[in-house]
Amino acid sequence: MKPRSSMSEPAGLFDGVLARGDVQTRLSDAAWLAALLEVEAALARAGAAAGIVPAGAAAAIDAACDAKAFDVADLSAAATASGNPVVPLVQRLRSIVPDHVAPYVHKGATSQDIMDTAAMLVAHRALVPLLADLRGAADSAAGLARAHRDTVMAGRTLLQQAVPTTFGLKAAGWMVGLDEAATRLAEVRATRLAAQFGGAAGTLAGLGGAGVDVAARLAAELGLAAPVLPWHAIRTRPVELACALGEAAGVTAKVSRDVTLLAQNEVGEVSEETPGGSSVMAHKRNPIAAVSAAACAAQAPGLVATLLAAMAHEHERAAGAWHAEWRPQRELLVATGSAVAWMRDCLEHLVVHPEAMRANLDPLLGRLGGYAGAPDVGLAGPLVDRALAARPDREGPREDRPKGREESGGRDE
Amino acid sequence: MKPRSSMSEPAGLFDGVLARGDVQTRLSDAAWLAALLEVEAALARAGAAAGIVPAGAAAAIDAACDAKAFDVADLSAAATASGNPVVPLVQRLRSIVPDHVAPYVHKGATSQDIMDTAAMLVAHRALVPLLADLRGAADSAAGLARAHRDTVMAGRTLLQQAVPTTFGLKAAGWMVGLDEAATRLAEVRATRLAAQFGGAAGTLAGLGGAGVDVAARLAAELGLAAPVLPWHAIRTRPVELACALGEAAGVTAKVSRDVTLLAQNEVGEVSEETPGGSSVMAHKRNPIAAVSAAACAAQAPGLVATLLAAMAHEHERAAGAWHAEWRPQRELLVATGSAVAWMRDCLEHLVVHPEAMRANLDPLLGRLGGYAGAPDVGLAGPLVDRALAARPDREGPREDRPKGREESGGRDE
Amino acid sequence: MKPRSSMSEPAGLFDGVLARGDVQTRLSDAAWLAALLEVEAALARAGAAAGIVPAGAAAAIDAACDAKAFDVADLSAAATASGNPVVPLVQRLRSIVPDHVAPYVHKGATSQDIMDTAAMLVAHRALVPLLADLRGAADSAAGLARAHRDTVMAGRTLLQQAVPTTFGLKAAGWMVGLDEAATRLAEVRATRLAAQFGGAAGTLAGLGGAGVDVAARLAAELGLAAPVLPWHAIRTRPVELACALGEAAGVTAKVSRDVTLLAQNEVGEVSEETPGGSSVMAHKRNPIAAVSAAACAAQAPGLVATLLAAMAHEHERAAGAWHAEWRPQRELLVATGSAVAWMRDCLEHLVVHPEAMRANLDPLLGRLGGYAGAPDVGLAGPLVDRALAARPDREGPREDRPKGREESGGRDE
Amino acid sequence: MKPRSSMSEPAGLFDGVLARGDVQTRLSDAAWLAALLEVEAALARAGAAAGIVPAGAAAAIDAACDAKAFDVADLSAAATASGNPVVPLVQRLRSIVPDHVAPYVHKGATSQDIMDTAAMLVAHRALVPLLADLRGAADSAAGLARAHRDTVMAGRTLLQQAVPTTFGLKAAGWMVGLDEAATRLAEVRATRLAAQFGGAAGTLAGLGGAGVDVAARLAAELGLAAPVLPWHAIRTRPVELACALGEAAGVTAKVSRDVTLLAQNEVGEVSEETPGGSSVMAHKRNPIAAVSAAACAAQAPGLVATLLAAMAHEHERAAGAWHAEWRPQRELLVATGSAVAWMRDCLEHLVVHPEAMRANLDPLLGRLGGYAGAPDVGLAGPLVDRALAARPDREGPREDRPKGREESGGRDE
Repeated sequence: MKPRSSMSEPAGLFDGVLARGDVQTRLSDAAWLAALLEVEAALARAGAAAGIVPAGAAAAIDAACDAKAFDVADLSAAATASGNPVVPLVQRLRSIVPDHVAPYVHKGATSQDIMDTAAMLVAHRALVPLLADLRGAADSAAGLARAHRDTVMAGRTLLQQAVPTTFGLKAAGWMVGLDEAATRLAEVRATRLAAQFGGAAGTLAGLGGAGVDVAARLAAELGLAAPVLPWHAIRTRPVELACALGEAAGVTAKVSRDVTLLAQNEVGEVSEETPGGSSVMAHKRNPIAAVSAAACAAQAPGLVATLLAAMAHEHERAAGAWHAEWRPQRELLVATGSAVAWMRDCLEHLVVHPEAMRANLDPLLGRLGGYAGAPDVGLAGPLVDRALAARPDREGPREDRPKGREESGGRDE
Repeated sequence: MKPRSSMSEPAGLFDGVLARGDVQTRLSDAAWLAALLEVEAALARAGAAAGIVPAGAAAAIDAACDAKAFDVADLSAAATASGNPVVPLVQRLRSIVPDHVAPYVHKGATSQDIMDTAAMLVAHRALVPLLADLRGAADSAAGLARAHRDTVMAGRTLLQQAVPTTFGLKAAGWMVGLDEAATRLAEVRATRLAAQFGGAAGTLAGLGGAGVDVAARLAAELGLAAPVLPWHAIRTRPVELACALGEAAGVTAKVSRDVTLLAQNEVGEVSEETPGGSSVMAHKRNPIAAVSAAACAAQAPGLVATLLAAMAHEHERAAGAWHAEWRPQRELLVATGSAVAWMRDCLEHLVVHPEAMRANLDPLLGRLGGYAGAPDVGLAGPLVDRALAARPDREGPREDRPKGREESGGRDE
Repeated sequence: MKPRSSMSEPAGLFDGVLARGDVQTRLSDAAWLAALLEVEAALARAGAAAGIVPAGAAAAIDAACDAKAFDVADLSAAATASGNPVVPLVQRLRSIVPDHVAPYVHKGATSQDIMDTAAMLVAHRALVPLLADLRGAADSAAGLARAHRDTVMAGRTLLQQAVPTTFGLKAAGWMVGLDEAATRLAEVRATRLAAQFGGAAGTLAGLGGAGVDVAARLAAELGLAAPVLPWHAIRTRPVELACALGEAAGVTAKVSRDVTLLAQNEVGEVSEETPGGSSVMAHKRNPIAAVSAAACAAQAPGLVATLLAAMAHEHERAAGAWHAEWRPQRELLVATGSAVAWMRDCLEHLVVHPEAMRANLDPLLGRLGGYAGAPDVGLAGPLVDRALAARPDREGPREDRPKGREESGGRDE
Repeated sequence: MKPRSSMSEPAGLFDGVLARGDVQTRLSDAAWLAALLEVEAALARAGAAAGIVPAGAAAAIDAACDAKAFDVADLSAAATASGNPVVPLVQRLRSIVPDHVAPYVHKGATSQDIMDTAAMLVAHRALVPLLADLRGAADSAAGLARAHRDTVMAGRTLLQQAVPTTFGLKAAGWMVGLDEAATRLAEVRATRLAAQFGGAAGTLAGLGGAGVDVAARLAAELGLAAPVLPWHAIRTRPVELACALGEAAGVTAKVSRDVTLLAQNEVGEVSEETPGGSSVMAHKRNPIAAVSAAACAAQAPGLVATLLAAMAHEHERAAGAWHAEWRPQRELLVATGSAVAWMRDCLEHLVVHPEAMRANLDPLLGRLGGYAGAPDVGLAGPLVDRALAARPDREGPREDRPKGREESGGRDE
């Protein structure tokens, strides 16, 4: 399979197959560290705007929030004692800034405020390429639907030939599914990914009356939604994200299944333009993009279940269920992001073989008997037209540049 | 625990605990059979309106769709050979109507059209009491938030006392979570529960050009959404329903956890008005509604995963993945419906003990040292006010009476 | 599909497809009620043998434990208040026996003792037909392996033809998987399904020193393992059962997948002897047993996850996680039992088409080029011989007749 | 929390909390690469022993299998085209060895042979510290049971005080659960972790008659079980591993739950010796080991479900379901390994407060009324004795040194 320019360099042993697409770099420890620091910086700026942090202190904190001064392994090691990496990150940050600024670092916040907001920020950004790939896959499906509006083939139910259909209608079904998943995911991204700010127990204590104002400004700084209340222990937001990802993965799994079935030698109705080879079987033309998409997508349902099962947080912060979200949420973004990246590859390079479709159809027409002349594909064509016409208007999410970061140049993505 | 008037009679051995609330009767085999017949009847009426079924035939079919003429066990036994109960149901229906009407029964439909539409209809109806209970629980949480706006208590993180908060703020958090889950579930109900009509392979063959019109009329007859394409193998709709149910169950699990923790003897900050007893321990006052809610809710995540994992349907109808949805979807509605019914019970009858909250808080205040005088609960009060003010405007879903059924009296719910 | 003599009458609407095999009747409410009463009766007899219950009282209790005197719906309704159906069952039992006997009913037990032991007893019995079907399926696979030891066909990887193999080797792979799942399940049944007896908090209080003796006798009475300690809150036993069921379902899913793929029209290498029809497509020959097996098996992984996630029981009895096991455990037994029953049907009636296998292989041989003459199937034949020779010696579990029940006639199964 | 000498350096941001214990280093990409190369080397040696690879060629291959000559990122990038990292690894290996040796590299093997065997080898090694931690935790629980055989406390059911018990009996329950999980896991390790060797389609073609001999020798070289047949598409072995890990995680979750509940301020019956602090709440003493154990364990059930759901492999090698195992299997080992490492920490440093247990018990004794004098803890003491006496004899798994590697020094762990 030829290299794609936008692909980030895979690093892990399985990543060439299971961590595909630009989504991956946005989920790295480096991306996470950057996000944690952006949240601390945004909090300082929000505090300044709300009048509870001196402007100079905010500027000093903002300047100190430079990832180069922090080491992930150190933070991780120190997190063993504190239970999360924000505690040592704040300690380090306070040690960098001038002494009189230190009290304004992390002002009014609790570790979970920073972690949750960073998780949302990371997801918000990872969804940009993920949605682009998902919509790219849908666009390719739309192209296939249009191009093959009248390409007859056997419709198959329970893996048995049933009655004629068209490849255009099949592709239109894929398109609708991919579009629906994208619509839901974009909706979650726009409305449910929120900043978190509540302080130690969610009361916004320690900021006088300014807490609500700071919370709103923090969200605005980061381009995230502002929640009505802190949601430390009410995990509807992470699970709506998880579910939307699970839906996208599931649609991808369906398309993958169809492609691998159609690509069987005995069927031969589609192939991938640049199939994968085999070290020992030169004749094989594996539909590697579809296979890889299926492999990635298969990891999603269990991860969604983990996040749903972790909703029973105790009181104001959970005794484990919160920490339990971190890896599964990342794995779910990796898996779904990779699945849709592979699926976009697959559909953009799918080769359709109408003659094989027709050849496989003929015996069915014979069995059907009554079908003399043109195969009866019902309203397949008009249905394709209708589905294409009904596609959602949409703008891909633009990368939201946090306010006030423009001057700092390349730290934003 | 005193009987609740709206409770349907439990039938199964575990149902007294695990199948609570009016949602259950709407998920019974009787409800399913009624729905299957309503879909066949609505299809005949839709066909008549679209001009492809004689009005008299439609009326005859409509009249024949009477559950009394059908036996669930017979249908189930016959389904063994055909793979689903619609095949024998249609055979029986054709045997009941006059011979010249028989060809108009199930006109243009495939079994999955009827099953999927019935599943959506059943869910649409089951969600009426489920949403009522979910919103009832949220209303009770709102009442608690309002009543205890200024009731101080210890905020607890990682199951350790952290800083002061109020019970009002805790209850407001519950309310927001329950409201959010209800909002999402109502949205899915209103926009994603759709009729299914595509015929054998989704092409709407066999109806001339009328298929799209029939599909639209079928949806309108039943009060369901009309999809742009048949969705036999694109399962975004069932999984969005499943995920919304999983979210509702998860919020319920969170509230349950808090209630059972607060009700511990050593904490004693809440109790249930009519706790469950024990056959051998007369002194026990089990918070049985919260415990049962937790038990019901715990079943949801795995079922959601099953439905997500079943999305990879093959071609135009799956070789197993479709049938795999039936029991898990029902179980998920039962589990979530029961969880929210118990939670409503729990919150409507929750007894709060402010004096215990205060007594447990005192040692924390001592440890905190700096807290002289009134406990510092930050903005807990204003946050409660704000959350109450921001509650969603909503109308509970009204029972949608299928058009044309008015005359037939009591068959509708 | 022709009726199978051993099939119990399906009752539920989906049961014809999703609740197949004799396992179902052993999981019914009636079976559960019988098991609950058998446990109470066995407990009384164990108490008598241990010298803490008068022989006459034990006999009276034993006689009163007649399911005809109990109503499931009543118990279920009453369970709403108590949290489980054992509380009202014990009350009823005490009301039936003479007053002086009543104190000996449920002597030293807690509700969970009875529920858990009954659950194990129900599973122990349900596994008899389940294991018979699983081993029957393995035997059929063995027969196919033997019969088709030298039947050449295309080996397929990533759904692409790879190199030649034999159908015998494929069937031997199925056999090994089914045998391994059966071995593990039989092992769990023999060693891990245990009686539960600990009293209110697992201390065996209230029986003087006789508790351990009573516990051992109770297990022996019921043919269950005797645990070293009560396991009210240590759920290794239910999850080992669940995992073994999940494994059996997973192997079944694999075989189903292969059969449905081989049965595709374009492949045509196997078919089911009595395929399912279609109401609208007379030409179709759906491999309904394989499809149904897949549908049943697909429900297992999520249910296993539910039971694993429910292991975190609080203290001496969980605040919800215990009750959360009841429905999923039953559903898992139903799903797996049905999957293996369908799989046995499928394999016992599988028609193999060697000529189609050979015809599909020829183009592959052409692509492989070097393969002149007989296809090179390596050691496929000797591997089949080896696998057949290595099959586990096993005796199907015999129905364990609880001691002391012989005289009561037909209540045992 | 004080550093533990055996702890590997955490690298990832979440790893300080979620990737604890020596198990982690054995799951790294470096460990995987080493295992892949060891399998190729062992295969060459096995071939030499079986007479199909010249001794000199085997020695050359063995020498070339040095991780320093390979780059994980390169392999991963190349895996994108081939679908797995073994294809480029073999290419590289062939380029390193002399030309006349190259044909003997990977002789008779397919990529999955190497990946599956390496996965088993990695798991086999990762289980050494994991089992040591699990048994260490059980030993600590045993110590607690012995030390607190007669320490009375309140038994609690449904989170309500029920009747008296002892902390010794509670700890004995933990011990039994941990021991049972270890027993099962050790059994899976010893009997179910097997080498994989079948060639392109599992027929052992291309090795003349030597294939079975090579397969047996490969297994022996690596200290893995020798399967009766290749298991490329029969995934009972990976799922038995997964389930045993899920069981261990589940028991850990139970103990964590108990510890966090007992450590509540209002209960105060246990504490951790070196609790975690808080950046903003100096007074807090979070039971960080128990909390972290719970967080790690909560990730297991979903991952087990993923692996169970991935069992439906197509034909001789799956179109996605195989690749889908790689990340979840690793995540599951990380999660479970971390959970048990934290649990061992927790129990080794658990501080028990008998006086608080007694103080919390007194009001219960009052409510119980009848309990004058010493609390009635039934047979708690004898049950503890009995459980301690029944502990399994066991030897920890020794690190199996692959035969023939002794001379190469430090590459083995």
